[in-house]
Amino acid sequence: MLETKEGVSENMAGDSPLKNLYIILLEPRIPENVGSSARACANFGVENLIIVNPINFDWERAKTTATRIGLPVLQRMKVYDNLSDAVKGLNYLIGTTARLGHHRKVHSSLKEAAPRIASMLIKNRVGLLFGNEKWGLTNQELYMCNEAITIPTHNSTSLNLSHSVAVCLYEIYQQALKPSIPTPELATLEDQKIMYDYIRRACEAINFVPHHNTELWMTNIKRLLSRIQLSRREAKIITGFCRRIIKVMQK
Amino acid sequence: MLETKEGVSENMAGDSPLKNLYIILLEPRIPENVGSSARACANFGVENLIIVNPINFDWERAKTTATRIGLPVLQRMKVYDNLSDAVKGLNYLIGTTARLGHHRKVHSSLKEAAPRIASMLIKNRVGLLFGNEKWGLTNQELYMCNEAITIPTHNSTSLNLSHSVAVCLYEIYQQALKPSIPTPELATLEDQKIMYDYIRRACEAINFVPHHNTELWMTNIKRLLSRIQLSRREAKIITGFCRRIIKVMQK
Repeated sequence: MLETKEGVSENMAGDSPLKNLYIILLEPRIPENVGSSARACANFGVENLIIVNPINFDWERAKTTATRIGLPVLQRMKVYDNLSDAVKGLNYLIGTTARLGHHRKVHSSLKEAAPRIASMLIKNRVGLLFGNEKWGLTNQELYMCNEAITIPTHNSTSLNLSHSVAVCLYEIYQQALKPSIPTPELATLEDQKIMYDYIRRACEAINFVPHHNTELWMTNIKRLLSRIQLSRREAKIITGFCRRIIKVMQK
Repeated sequence: MLETKEGVSENMAGDSPLKNLYIILLEPRIPENVGSSARACANFGVENLIIVNPINFDWERAKTTATRIGLPVLQRMKVYDNLSDAVKGLNYLIGTTARLGHHRKVHSSLKEAAPRIASMLIKNRVGLLFGNEKWGLTNQELYMCNEAITIPTHNSTSLNLSHSVAVCLYEIYQQALKPSIPTPELATLEDQKIMYDYIRRACEAINFVPHHNTELWMTNIKRLLSRIQLSRREAKIITGFCRRIIKVMQK
């Protein structure tokens, strides 16, 4: 962690439907976009803003666009130097992307995903990940997400970073105001990481995975399982099953 | 009109579902917000951005946030020095407001209004009016609109101007992508202005309006008729009826 400005804000109201949502900006380059995003967070009751490895970050420039409304969010914003640390403790991670493609894991538009996200938020900490202003998220970064969503635009032009944040929060907030059935508590990203590690080792133990391309093969498995939204208990069952295979094969 | 930067843009695609939508910013104070709004317009296929009586406008500062994506919209943006001139030729004008209240004519949230706006846009020129960064729209300005809409936020905090534009365009664009039944061609704002003028004069001619408070009384009539979405023909019928009353009374 590079720097953290903590401090509990008095302005922050307690009962926002988006209190379990975490906005994560990856390597933002324009401090004003971070400030504008903080204001958008406050506008829709999001308390947790995270930036990862920011380029030329400047608190004063960020404060200008955060305005009085976004200042409490900016003050409690956390700064990490890598994405893995930033997402620890989250149950679900959603990447946002303008570019579509076979390997980009885009399952749905924001509008399709929003009701599902709102249900998840009742009992789960969900991260919404935004790439930098220039390139967005790389395939490698999207690979760390459970799914990717997109905001359809005219001619697929890319939105300003803080506009993307505002539009996503607007849509999820409107959905979260409606009553919905809560999604059960999901396995955290750490639980999932451990599970995928055991799956890979189990597959290797029974010689089931092509040695020359383990990563691609694991991507297929991940793509399949990430659609299920595994509960904590289910992730533990799969992990236990794979541990057993490994143990048996070692004998 | 203070200044106009015309010039047909080659980058602008022809077949946007929002080509009949006009974004009107009233007395904007921060040129960067105008630029960001231009980019949001381009993102959702809106070609017509209008600013009215801008404070300290600066093309260079606006260009920075418009980026390459929003530049064509910024270049054809029109600048007026009063709202009446800016809305000439529109069929329907919608005000946006964060503040709610009895006299503020707010009929619906953005989400409720969007399908209706999308239907109107097929055959009508619709203006979406945004107040300045400090105060939003006054009651007087809202009085000029056919209706007012609001974006629900946490604790009713006000959104950044360009964020409001982006969120509105996002919602209307998503609706406009769906097939819908077109609303017939409505009376223009000028037709409506003429009609209301004749209604007032007819009421005065038959001594039907309280002389000490004509304006408030006309507000009631306007509130009633603006809910109907009058076609051009219907506005002409009402106007003709009132002209007849005036003529008969003059004898």
